[in-house]
Amino acid sequence: MAGETIRICRRETFNAAHRLYRKDWSDEKNYEVFGKCSYPNYHGHNYVIEVWLEGPIDPITGYLMDLKLLKGIIQKEVCDRFDHKNFNLDCAEFKDRIPTAENIAVVSWNLIKPELPENIALEVVIQETEKNKVAYRGN
Amino acid sequence: MAGETIRICRRETFNAAHRLYRKDWSDEKNYEVFGKCSYPNYHGHNYVIEVWLEGPIDPITGYLMDLKLLKGIIQKEVCDRFDHKNFNLDCAEFKDRIPTAENIAVVSWNLIKPELPENIALEVVIQETEKNKVAYRGN
Amino acid sequence: MAGETIRICRRETFNAAHRLYRKDWSDEKNYEVFGKCSYPNYHGHNYVIEVWLEGPIDPITGYLMDLKLLKGIIQKEVCDRFDHKNFNLDCAEFKDRIPTAENIAVVSWNLIKPELPENIALEVVIQETEKNKVAYRGN
Amino acid sequence: MAGETIRICRRETFNAAHRLYRKDWSDEKNYEVFGKCSYPNYHGHNYVIEVWLEGPIDPITGYLMDLKLLKGIIQKEVCDRFDHKNFNLDCAEFKDRIPTAENIAVVSWNLIKPELPENIALEVVIQETEKNKVAYRGN
Amino acid sequence: MAGETIRICRRETFNAAHRLYRKDWSDEKNYEVFGKCSYPNYHGHNYVIEVWLEGPIDPITGYLMDLKLLKGIIQKEVCDRFDHKNFNLDCAEFKDRIPTAENIAVVSWNLIKPELPENIALEVVIQETEKNKVAYRGN
Amino acid sequence: MAGETIRICRRETFNAAHRLYRKDWSDEKNYEVFGKCSYPNYHGHNYVIEVWLEGPIDPITGYLMDLKLLKGIIQKEVCDRFDHKNFNLDCAEFKDRIPTAENIAVVSWNLIKPELPENIALEVVIQETEKNKVAYRGN
Repeated sequence: MAGETIRICRRETFNAAHRLYRKDWSDEKNYEVFGKCSYPNYHGHNYVIEVWLEGPIDPITGYLMDLKLLKGIIQKEVCDRFDHKNFNLDCAEFKDRIPTAENIAVVSWNLIKPELPENIALEVVIQETEKNKVAYRGN
Repeated sequence: MAGETIRICRRETFNAAHRLYRKDWSDEKNYEVFGKCSYPNYHGHNYVIEVWLEGPIDPITGYLMDLKLLKGIIQKEVCDRFDHKNFNLDCAEFKDRIPTAENIAVVSWNLIKPELPENIALEVVIQETEKNKVAYRGN
Repeated sequence: MAGETIRICRRETFNAAHRLYRKDWSDEKNYEVFGKCSYPNYHGHNYVIEVWLEGPIDPITGYLMDLKLLKGIIQKEVCDRFDHKNFNLDCAEFKDRIPTAENIAVVSWNLIKPELPENIALEVVIQETEKNKVAYRGN
Repeated sequence: MAGETIRICRRETFNAAHRLYRKDWSDEKNYEVFGKCSYPNYHGHNYVIEVWLEGPIDPITGYLMDLKLLKGIIQKEVCDRFDHKNFNLDCAEFKDRIPTAENIAVVSWNLIKPELPENIALEVVIQETEKNKVAYRGN
Repeated sequence: MAGETIRICRRETFNAAHRLYRKDWSDEKNYEVFGKCSYPNYHGHNYVIEVWLEGPIDPITGYLMDLKLLKGIIQKEVCDRFDHKNFNLDCAEFKDRIPTAENIAVVSWNLIKPELPENIALEVVIQETEKNKVAYRGN
Repeated sequence: MAGETIRICRRETFNAAHRLYRKDWSDEKNYEVFGKCSYPNYHGHNYVIEVWLEGPIDPITGYLMDLKLLKGIIQKEVCDRFDHKNFNLDCAEFKDRIPTAENIAVVSWNLIKPELPENIALEVVIQETEKNKVAYRGN
């Protein structure tokens, strides 16, 4: 017998560098669209990732999912991969994607989803600064 | 004439002790599943409860609901009941439920819902630490 | 080809004064309903506005929308209009609306929505104090 | 025997309206010096007050001072006096003082100090917005 | 040649249960002094510890002290010792000390100080709730 | 006549990339000392700068210093200089200094101090992550 449907959230952090630009655009065009985010030598952020799961409470444990397991998945799939890295230079996932917060959320979702049981829905929130964040629920 | 449908949120806090374990399991099994949360002498948290209501704005007052009333309901049904208490030893609501954040959210929802007008939807968010929280909307 | 559907959030702040009361009620009746918020000489808040947009990622830029543009819209439509103002005395939008957080959210939504592309959904969150906030998605 | 010298801090909040201006200056001069803070119809803030005490731990209780007592003093001397008030119109303490954060800190210190035992040093911190605060230790 | 004198701060967290009471007092007397904190079955908190060091910058590394080392000291001396524990029942350090925030700060200071180089001054800040914290600099 | 001595604080933010390493050390030695902070392609942070001034309240304005002026100084001397930059590659101030938080605080202090009146004392706090910050008061 499945328990109540609930959502849980786990928050982790990582620090990384990035630059927003298209190789097929001039520096002027990149600056026009991406502003200071297109500066050539990179800048960086303290990224916060919030991982939200939705599914039934396990009546045996009272958990939707053991947070130690969820923490391990986030650590392995996101933090170990991106922490203290340069998204543009170090991360194959962004070879053909500009490392905007939007794309970091989508990529993180794609990395975490296969690690979860099928009946659990996933939303990933990426906070890039105190003033902006994005949320992705899959398509 | 009912006003716009809106959501409002009230935040309160309380402090409590708990232990996560099943009486029908050995200490080893409990530690295997619940880790440090199964330590025998309890630990505790500063719990944050966010109560979200959804319903129409009252055109007379511009309120969905007077927050003083909502605060009073949260105080009476949740804070007075659980603040400075031990969920396992003091709270009848958890006699047959492990006091995980998930179950605290469900129990709080069940306590608050009957105090609200019928046309108001309820979601309860329980934050247990800076890194984890749960949200419950009823079933 | 449109990219993944995503939500993005931009956070801004402004400071304003207000008083909650109805001109057609006595001071006693106003105090009974609105409590200290009805005091005659106004009080004020540091308001936080979170503007959430939902729509597709632009595959060219990796953005749902350039945050500089969104910031400009919020600045022009909300912050420039309400910052360091008295909602009751200075703001035509509240001539016939009590400036509750609920109504500030609705008015802000109505001001921002026409500035956005049609395919982008909007939610406005207004935080009035550490303990209360409201969210409005349109009707 | 007195215990270790320690500092403790209690945090409370209140909401108020104010306007920064000098009656002996023109509107233009006031705007030049105080900017938007001089707008005639007031604006407001969610003020945070942090009260820091320094003194010895009482070996009997393990407290520097019972926080319930300290909370009561802050409540009576500061919050009850200023909450939901207009500093300029309602508060005699600011009849001859411009209600800047600096002066609010000094006035609050002057109100709280006489309520404390003589051997306890006092510092008052007033946070006016997320971006500015002031701290006063007496003279 | 020593570099500039600077202060650095590292923040960690742990969760624990406690009860404030004196065994040589009646339950009534304990309730009179410690209020709800004297309830017999314990309650708990998410404790935040901020460890501040003051000393010279090492001109070779640009560090006052490697934060990995400092984190390790806090982990071993404070978090491993108190996390998910009951101060009253599990911790020898509080056998003859009431586990107030004041005493937790003093005990933590006493545990961390011997692990640091002699020329580094130490201050320990313990935050017990959103509303109260204490700071101890040694005597 | 000078008013009460007080401290005021202004908070600003900027985002930058950096790498901690010494050119005269091998990669192995750099990794041994600086860990992941020595990764070759940089990482980054959302830096928070808090600028604390200490001095007398101006009895005419009730200000220690107009925060618009202070904000302008921080903007010009720190944020415009470092925001969206790479400390190692773009900033002459760090040609012979490793861009640790300690050194960023010292450099920022050295940049801001000459812009202030002589009778005002200065402390600069740099927060690099949620878990670490440094404070520098000059020597």
